[in-house]
Amino acid sequence: MNPIKDFAQMTAYLQSYSERKRVVVVCPNDPHTEYAVLRALKERLAEFVLITDSHYAARVEDIRNQYPQDVEVFVVPTPDDAAALAVQMVREGKADIMMKGLINTDNLLHAVLNKQTGILPQGEILTHITVAHIPTYPKLLIFSDAAVIPRPNLAQFKAIIRATTEVAHSCGVEEPRIALLHFCEKVNEKFPHTLDYEMLKECALKGEFGRVQMDGPMDVKTACDIHSGNIKGLSSPVVGNADILIFPNLEASNTFYKTITLFAHADMAGMLRGPISPVVVTSRSDSSISKYYSLVLACLSENHKSQISVNHENLCY
Amino acid sequence: MNPIKDFAQMTAYLQSYSERKRVVVVCPNDPHTEYAVLRALKERLAEFVLITDSHYAARVEDIRNQYPQDVEVFVVPTPDDAAALAVQMVREGKADIMMKGLINTDNLLHAVLNKQTGILPQGEILTHITVAHIPTYPKLLIFSDAAVIPRPNLAQFKAIIRATTEVAHSCGVEEPRIALLHFCEKVNEKFPHTLDYEMLKECALKGEFGRVQMDGPMDVKTACDIHSGNIKGLSSPVVGNADILIFPNLEASNTFYKTITLFAHADMAGMLRGPISPVVVTSRSDSSISKYYSLVLACLSENHKSQISVNHENLCY
Repeated sequence: MNPIKDFAQMTAYLQSYSERKRVVVVCPNDPHTEYAVLRALKERLAEFVLITDSHYAARVEDIRNQYPQDVEVFVVPTPDDAAALAVQMVREGKADIMMKGLINTDNLLHAVLNKQTGILPQGEILTHITVAHIPTYPKLLIFSDAAVIPRPNLAQFKAIIRATTEVAHSCGVEEPRIALLHFCEKVNEKFPHTLDYEMLKECALKGEFGRVQMDGPMDVKTACDIHSGNIKGLSSPVVGNADILIFPNLEASNTFYKTITLFAHADMAGMLRGPISPVVVTSRSDSSISKYYSLVLACLSENHKSQISVNHENLCY
Repeated sequence: MNPIKDFAQMTAYLQSYSERKRVVVVCPNDPHTEYAVLRALKERLAEFVLITDSHYAARVEDIRNQYPQDVEVFVVPTPDDAAALAVQMVREGKADIMMKGLINTDNLLHAVLNKQTGILPQGEILTHITVAHIPTYPKLLIFSDAAVIPRPNLAQFKAIIRATTEVAHSCGVEEPRIALLHFCEKVNEKFPHTLDYEMLKECALKGEFGRVQMDGPMDVKTACDIHSGNIKGLSSPVVGNADILIFPNLEASNTFYKTITLFAHADMAGMLRGPISPVVVTSRSDSSISKYYSLVLACLSENHKSQISVNHENLCY
């Protein structure tokens, strides 16, 4: 598989899988979510379970009537009930992916993270992964965490690295180049994440993350522009050529997310990892197309996972 | 004066001033600095004092021979001597602006910050101001601090706001719109800068910063894109229309700087404020044109200051 370079390629690749994943959508009642669902149905990318409250029942029924083979509908009293039912379906294996619609993110996460009935296994870390197609960068750029973890500690950095690496694999990048970001190249105890970076690089060398190239601390430009690295006399497989950017805090990652979207016209897809299924939770200011791409990303990533587990079973014989 | 919208306008505006400022350059021996100096000489934007060590004496003499009326040259034993002499000339009023060439930034700052012989008045705060022209934003965007203060405290935020506001004025923005940046709109004691933001907004309302509009916490997109603000139900004179971005930490501001440069093809100018004269210290990976724009910015900013002080003297009669 060649590395996927944009979302059109990602969609085409997803369509090449024979198995379609089943997405449960909590309150698909806003225009952006409806757009994403309808487009995915039209392109036969996934099957859907749409859970809504009675207020929107007619609209959702209408979608089922358009795609009776591929859509199941449940009407429940409140958005919280919709979230609870969606989580239950994921637990029971009746859905592979969860997607947020017109429900407050906190309410959705309340159901996802419930210790008795939720879908985050004990010891797993919830993190958010973004995949960006920036017109001025020659490949996809995966980064984290731009939504959930404000200041990752070492264990959280490891979870973020595992999750982003898995996404890179599902995008056909066999040995992802991971840049650990800071505002300069110096390790400095005043900035504890730079100490974590040293540990992470050791773990990477020992093979903890599989086949990856890891380098840092370095800044965004050093990570993504070979010329800047050269001027600084830096060279490594990562410098100027990053597939994955690991940010030290949410202020920096959010700045990156918003800046490439607004000023560099990037296309974005994002999802939560850690739960037993990916959860698509785009933010209010994300576009319809971004919700659709997020759905494509989640389906691709789940398809890739099932393919790996098949391979793994093969090895056991 | 209409607000300046790009660096071509800024240069034209600078040329409209009858008085030219005098720039002392510490070791103008790298191609980028030489480009900036020669272009400014050709366009008659400033006069120069070039201080270098004997190794580069011939090259610098050559520049003087091209512009004998506008260039003075000093040859000293080492770059540190060059920095010391430059600082002395600023102290003695023989130069208005200082510019870094091929000398380590730490060595230059050592001379600038020396308590006995330096040029940072007691109680003043050293900060870095950047002015960006982003092709996808309709006006100049001023931001800070992307180079000096890792985690501004309240006093440092105030110094940053005063310095950026002064730069906005010199660019013809009479009542700058200042966005206090965070990853969301919530004030939260876990993120102490958001508490500072509350204090800063109070100070702004009381007039501490003169005629400004201030709002936050908000993210980059909310600050610079009216549509994103609308979706979130936010509106203020700042939302979607920021002139100035105040960042909570160096990781975020550096990310912004590098991201708009690399992915959005922004033109940049920057300088240190706090010392009695602006100090131009562009980074290794900045371009020649960025050094030139920084010089233009520093000259404009000093011209504006002298104009204000003239006005002020007038008021005293």
